[in-house]
Amino acid sequence: MMPASLLDQLVDALRVLPGVGPKSAQRIVYQLLQRDREGAAKLARTLADALTQVKHCTRCNTFTEAEICERCLSPQRDPAQLCVVEMPSDLAVMESTQAYRGLYYVLMGRISPLDGVGPRELQLDQLLARATDGLVEEVILATNFTNEGEATAHYLGEMLRARGLRVSRIARGVPVGGELEHTDLGTVAQAFAERRGW
Amino acid sequence: MMPASLLDQLVDALRVLPGVGPKSAQRIVYQLLQRDREGAAKLARTLADALTQVKHCTRCNTFTEAEICERCLSPQRDPAQLCVVEMPSDLAVMESTQAYRGLYYVLMGRISPLDGVGPRELQLDQLLARATDGLVEEVILATNFTNEGEATAHYLGEMLRARGLRVSRIARGVPVGGELEHTDLGTVAQAFAERRGW
Repeated sequence: MMPASLLDQLVDALRVLPGVGPKSAQRIVYQLLQRDREGAAKLARTLADALTQVKHCTRCNTFTEAEICERCLSPQRDPAQLCVVEMPSDLAVMESTQAYRGLYYVLMGRISPLDGVGPRELQLDQLLARATDGLVEEVILATNFTNEGEATAHYLGEMLRARGLRVSRIARGVPVGGELEHTDLGTVAQAFAERRGW
Repeated sequence: MMPASLLDQLVDALRVLPGVGPKSAQRIVYQLLQRDREGAAKLARTLADALTQVKHCTRCNTFTEAEICERCLSPQRDPAQLCVVEMPSDLAVMESTQAYRGLYYVLMGRISPLDGVGPRELQLDQLLARATDGLVEEVILATNFTNEGEATAHYLGEMLRARGLRVSRIARGVPVGGELEHTDLGTVAQAFAERRGW
């Protein structure tokens, strides 16, 4: 048995990418070495830089190159509201709505027993410390409405209410512009159950 | 406008990977920085190493870390036969059959006008030099039976025959174990047209 060649090592290393199996790793290697060496070099460099320089904001836990991210430092944001999201991409969506002026906490995941992610793995004590800073008055749970997101919201609600915090959950219902006929039945049923006075 | 953060740069750099758009690049970044930093570091390192150390075999054009790859140097292989394939993965398939003991030439692509790849881009003069080394007696064209592979085989056939070389093409027909009923009509028609004496 010879030692693995650099090519084999690269094929192997590429399997760290989500959804990449041996065949597509092979294809990626040819693409990188044959068609776009410059792009590949940039990828190697940027990835190495990001690994050393990108860390988590000590306040909101999102990725940042600073100790505390710009958003957490901004005097424009309302420190009385803390919105909890699963991932930085969810934070980006919330920001795009321009409907929210408070601060965030990014879980960097969700409770998912099947993936071995429990409350411990999510380091929820960090969220607890953040939410009980004396300034936060309301915690808005904006995890996804998937089974895992719902379970996470449930767990967080219990945990935060036990500390005397006001907790809310973003609304679930028929999408804006949505027609009942084209909305799935579960959503319609929930929208009915959670109807509001009018 | 702030300068792009390292994260944005990494999202951007990842788009060099085939089939990766902005959304999946985002997902990959979270996966790498959040879930598998060790794997990501290994990927950055191996990719950088491969880019500096992997080059093309000066004889068969496949990827290798040496000047001339092991296969081309092997005294066990028959230098009178040269099998032309599109990619190293095709070479690997031919080798797996254990049906061939000659040498190879890897095109690292195929003629594909739509992708801007013509005979020039494939550097076919290198193949020509290789095939006319005085030892090669037969060139076996083993490009794919796709439109582009066929066009490539056609072009190579003309080019090599013009130099007085004996050229052959691997056979096309009903797969071994295949039933006519479950074979596409084009293949059956070709198998009929290319029937052999029995």
